[in-house]
Amino acid sequence: MNEAIAKLLSPRSVAVIGASADPQKTTGRPVAYLQKHGFSGRILPVNPKVERIGDLPCYPDVASLPEVPDVAVVLLGAERAHQTVRELSARGCAAAIVLASGYTETGEEGAHRQAQLMDAAGRMRILGPNTIGLVNLTDGIVLSLSGALEMDAFPVGGIGVVSQSGGILGSLLSRAAARGIGLSKLISTSNEVDLELADFIDHLADDPATQVIALYVEAVRHPARFRAACLKAARAGKPVVAFKVGRSEAGAQAAVSHTGALAGADRMYDALFKQVGVIRAERFADLLDVPAALCTGRRLRGNRVAVLTSTGGAGTLVSDDLGVAGFETPPPDAATAQALRALQTGSEAVLDRNPIDVTLAGLRPDLLRGAITALLASPRYDALVIIVGSSSLAMPELLAGAIQACLPDSDKPVLAYVSPHAPEIGALLTQRGVPAFAAAESCTAALAGMLRASRFEVSGEPGAAALAPGPAALALEPLPGGPLDEAQAKAVFGRFGVPCAAERVVGTAAEAEAAALELGGPVVLKILSSRITHKSDVGGVAVGLLPQTIGARLDRMADEVEARAGERPHRFLVQQMVAGGTELILGLHRDALGTAVLLGMGGVTAELFQDTALRLLPCEGGRLGALSRAEALSMAQELKTWPLLDGFRGRPCADVQALVDAVVAFSAMAAQLGDRVVEAEINPVFVLPRGQGVCAADGVLVLA
Amino acid sequence: MNEAIAKLLSPRSVAVIGASADPQKTTGRPVAYLQKHGFSGRILPVNPKVERIGDLPCYPDVASLPEVPDVAVVLLGAERAHQTVRELSARGCAAAIVLASGYTETGEEGAHRQAQLMDAAGRMRILGPNTIGLVNLTDGIVLSLSGALEMDAFPVGGIGVVSQSGGILGSLLSRAAARGIGLSKLISTSNEVDLELADFIDHLADDPATQVIALYVEAVRHPARFRAACLKAARAGKPVVAFKVGRSEAGAQAAVSHTGALAGADRMYDALFKQVGVIRAERFADLLDVPAALCTGRRLRGNRVAVLTSTGGAGTLVSDDLGVAGFETPPPDAATAQALRALQTGSEAVLDRNPIDVTLAGLRPDLLRGAITALLASPRYDALVIIVGSSSLAMPELLAGAIQACLPDSDKPVLAYVSPHAPEIGALLTQRGVPAFAAAESCTAALAGMLRASRFEVSGEPGAAALAPGPAALALEPLPGGPLDEAQAKAVFGRFGVPCAAERVVGTAAEAEAAALELGGPVVLKILSSRITHKSDVGGVAVGLLPQTIGARLDRMADEVEARAGERPHRFLVQQMVAGGTELILGLHRDALGTAVLLGMGGVTAELFQDTALRLLPCEGGRLGALSRAEALSMAQELKTWPLLDGFRGRPCADVQALVDAVVAFSAMAAQLGDRVVEAEINPVFVLPRGQGVCAADGVLVLA
Repeated sequence: MNEAIAKLLSPRSVAVIGASADPQKTTGRPVAYLQKHGFSGRILPVNPKVERIGDLPCYPDVASLPEVPDVAVVLLGAERAHQTVRELSARGCAAAIVLASGYTETGEEGAHRQAQLMDAAGRMRILGPNTIGLVNLTDGIVLSLSGALEMDAFPVGGIGVVSQSGGILGSLLSRAAARGIGLSKLISTSNEVDLELADFIDHLADDPATQVIALYVEAVRHPARFRAACLKAARAGKPVVAFKVGRSEAGAQAAVSHTGALAGADRMYDALFKQVGVIRAERFADLLDVPAALCTGRRLRGNRVAVLTSTGGAGTLVSDDLGVAGFETPPPDAATAQALRALQTGSEAVLDRNPIDVTLAGLRPDLLRGAITALLASPRYDALVIIVGSSSLAMPELLAGAIQACLPDSDKPVLAYVSPHAPEIGALLTQRGVPAFAAAESCTAALAGMLRASRFEVSGEPGAAALAPGPAALALEPLPGGPLDEAQAKAVFGRFGVPCAAERVVGTAAEAEAAALELGGPVVLKILSSRITHKSDVGGVAVGLLPQTIGARLDRMADEVEARAGERPHRFLVQQMVAGGTELILGLHRDALGTAVLLGMGGVTAELFQDTALRLLPCEGGRLGALSRAEALSMAQELKTWPLLDGFRGRPCADVQALVDAVVAFSAMAAQLGDRVVEAEINPVFVLPRGQGVCAADGVLVLA
Repeated sequence: MNEAIAKLLSPRSVAVIGASADPQKTTGRPVAYLQKHGFSGRILPVNPKVERIGDLPCYPDVASLPEVPDVAVVLLGAERAHQTVRELSARGCAAAIVLASGYTETGEEGAHRQAQLMDAAGRMRILGPNTIGLVNLTDGIVLSLSGALEMDAFPVGGIGVVSQSGGILGSLLSRAAARGIGLSKLISTSNEVDLELADFIDHLADDPATQVIALYVEAVRHPARFRAACLKAARAGKPVVAFKVGRSEAGAQAAVSHTGALAGADRMYDALFKQVGVIRAERFADLLDVPAALCTGRRLRGNRVAVLTSTGGAGTLVSDDLGVAGFETPPPDAATAQALRALQTGSEAVLDRNPIDVTLAGLRPDLLRGAITALLASPRYDALVIIVGSSSLAMPELLAGAIQACLPDSDKPVLAYVSPHAPEIGALLTQRGVPAFAAAESCTAALAGMLRASRFEVSGEPGAAALAPGPAALALEPLPGGPLDEAQAKAVFGRFGVPCAAERVVGTAAEAEAAALELGGPVVLKILSSRITHKSDVGGVAVGLLPQTIGARLDRMADEVEARAGERPHRFLVQQMVAGGTELILGLHRDALGTAVLLGMGGVTAELFQDTALRLLPCEGGRLGALSRAEALSMAQELKTWPLLDGFRGRPCADVQALVDAVVAFSAMAAQLGDRVVEAEINPVFVLPRGQGVCAADGVLVLA
């Protein structure tokens, strides 16, 4: 655990630089909030114009402080903050929280100020600038001026929050409090001049008070550190849930290659999150809903949910939404139905369906307890959602008590959906260990998050061994930079283990004829040029040629390409024709998050549906690694058109194992060539029927 | 306006049959609620065991009532309700609300009781049974025992609610109240033994107090009446918003034909709603959010939204979500940026971007008013979303007043997003005419709903003229029932105007050779059988045949089909080969909602994505009509693969006009044949390049 970060979150003494004696002023808030929320350490206000703030002596400057503070809250404006930061650093303060705005977010001058600030900090750690600070609810320490802290008390719990926006921190704090959702720490990192997302994920992974980590992400600035911190949290058994804004900017991302156009930056985040076990919150509300469910520590082992209700409509609403997301709501098994029936003799309730409508149980807690126990004991269910209707509102304590009493009997998830407007009962249930939601989508998101959390295993990540360079690395040295021609490109792909179509480079009609004879069967003729990338557009591709026709066709092609591209081709490729397979695309995509392999279904229809899968190459100490076979297989299975490879409608099953090998080989090439690869794409790669392998038929490789 | 329904919603006298004197009991609620919520008419409790309920005399039976009540609320159980209903009907009561459960929803015995009830009602109208009743907030009349009525007061407004679930009525009532959303009437129709959805949509379309109609739908039992009522509402300028449960049961719907498998019942609702201008609420929350926005009467003319914020994170959240849904958030034009800058001299706010972050305006209402006025006046924006951050919480009245003051200057929509937990300020804003939301998705749904409302035009519906039978109708009389063979099927399609591939029916190798010569070019050979529908599966299709080869191929095909299907084919089809087009599927789907035409992209890839569009045939007085050309075109444009027909990636533009003609012709056939069609599908129909038409290459037709 980093000592400075530990001090930042749990200081014994806090200097507040620029503190006002007026608690109504923004600069008056930090001291007021520290006192209001029960900080037991020493508060050291600094302000040359003020002598006392309440009972506290106020110091004229940093030099006058009677002790070295663990942490300083700097309330000065951007033009002065760096001077104080320099003084604090000189005195040995561990960390400063700089709240001023006016840095990189405002333009060039602000960027200069930010560099100045960074320089002034020296070895002292900085949170911010432009941050709203942090809140440590576990220990009752608030170092923030968020207006949300006007509230008197907050439920304390196991969710640690790291937010790249200060306003969002306040929003989560107040929303969680209203819902009875307990938080441990909240940190707003904002401009991240120094301390950033990964530092706090790493810290919270070690924090005994934190069980789940929730992130509000605008941009991951240090992907490798982020990756390591998330994997550390996963190993510690602490799920990470992230909401990321910027989904709609995906289309605006400049595309590096054709396949790049299908892979916006937001999809890179999807890949990153998936690969390190981060559960992506689809909606902002999920960022509290999913952690609230995970924080119970209960475990979801399958997708079968019992919906227990005493009001028809709301039960249908919940089970319908669960169904859309792929959850099942099967009717009770015979023994469970029998147990339910025994509870309420004489009732007209129909117990052979789900939602399970136990009319009387909505009014009698003993019956409710019996029904919950029976459903949790049933081997047919992995989780239980209890619908709270208006009939339960008159007796919230009884209801909550009845549900709570059943929790120790099972570790299956138990959630509640509150149908009428009744936030108090929702908060009560949540605090008693039954996360309660007012939207069906929230129940679904919570269960989906729990399922993902229970299914992620850290072992999927390759170790350092996979990162070592292979034998092919040296052999590449003689390769020239710049765009390779198709034959050269495929030679490189082949050297790394991607099977390519048999082919010959020719210059004349006679050589083409000889090559066609040698390859046998119908062949393809293509111009060979590292400059012309769209060969078909200039008439540079002909298929289905035989030895007797290829010569004349070559001459005609040379004429046509010359007329259309203004350059007569002198080199051609005669290539074995591949038939009977499924066309895919295998490419690389690279942006600020790293280097990713992209696997996509070929053909215009799949392209319209953007049917592609992405995986980032692992990166340790600046060295890239290859994808694992499991990851490569998961890419193929993630394609919406995966059934085309899997025997859909009587098609032959494709050679998926060979495809997996090719993806791994391609990723190994990308890892070993590293920054030398500017662009790499195999399009198409044919996946043949099982046992017949794969075959790259065309490709592009641009080396630096 | 139906008189009985008018009396039901606004009675001057109400009998409560089975009323209890104990307001804590469920049966005590109706009288208590009527009094509590200020009913000014006469309340007539009926109960032989009670003499008085508070100040009211209680009558022993219906016969003793001193007057004929306009409406009776029947609180008796299912086993006794029908007797009272018979007595009420005999006395001339206009309508009875039957609250008992235990009818069709419980099984056979219940269904019997429901028939009995219906019989007892005679000419008296029934709401229910199994209903929670109705609430008329406009006139302060509550005829319901929903526990939500324990609340003291509800905001009154322009949203009329019809719900097929009683519990949901209570949920909407209490949730709307908490949000400051004003409702006019709420009716729970439940089992709909008599009065149903369409009756109340029709009534609310005439109700001056109702501007928007919100529906909670489990099943539309009378599609033609529903359609008529929704179109009436649309003509009256009253948008209808519907939430329908049962989305995930789609997969369980039995499929009538291959294309039917792609068209679950839920998609039929999608089609129905779209065709009559009903805005579908995707989430339950939308059922209040979208009407709340529509109820302002403000009009959204385009998709460009200004997001005005004083807190960065939440503004990003909202504009990101808007972007995902296709809304644009362009930066302010120069004049508007200038106006904004003039408002806050000396501020560091950057005004060349959107979200428009006016830091100071969050704290000063005069600046906020100036900024809102400038943004609403800007020709670059069609709507405004104002982000309410924690800084505004200290002065909700000032904030609401500032926003409200700007509303009269423009009729563009103005919404608010409240970032912290602050339900009071949300309710305040909503009541002042600025619908406020706590989720970005709600802002997006509200604006999307407004856009749909402003774009629907009733004129799209064909009039009675389109419903008249055409000349082809009589010519069909000689056609046999049962499955037609392919040649017969295509002959019928052709007679209705769908162009089909040229073809000849042959029996021998010699005839096939002659036919191939006559048709010219390569041809297709298929067995002709009304029994074998999957011809390829038994080796009954061969393509690319020439006159010299077709004879031998025919004999070989006969052998193969005999071996695989156990039946030697004696008739064959020689068909012109169609090339160079895009394959589509044109079929019929029929379920409880009606008869629909389905247009789908052909090929397995499109099938995996279920890329189809559905439109229900219009129905008036039991007679079906054809689709309009506009509807047919919208079907093609709705396909996700529409670009394949529209010049995607340099492909030739397809003959869309000919496709539209074919869809209209196919729909006219379905309309005219009506119930005679058991199954009809053209698969594939080739859409050729522009000017070359379409061509049906295979088809199935089963007539009754």
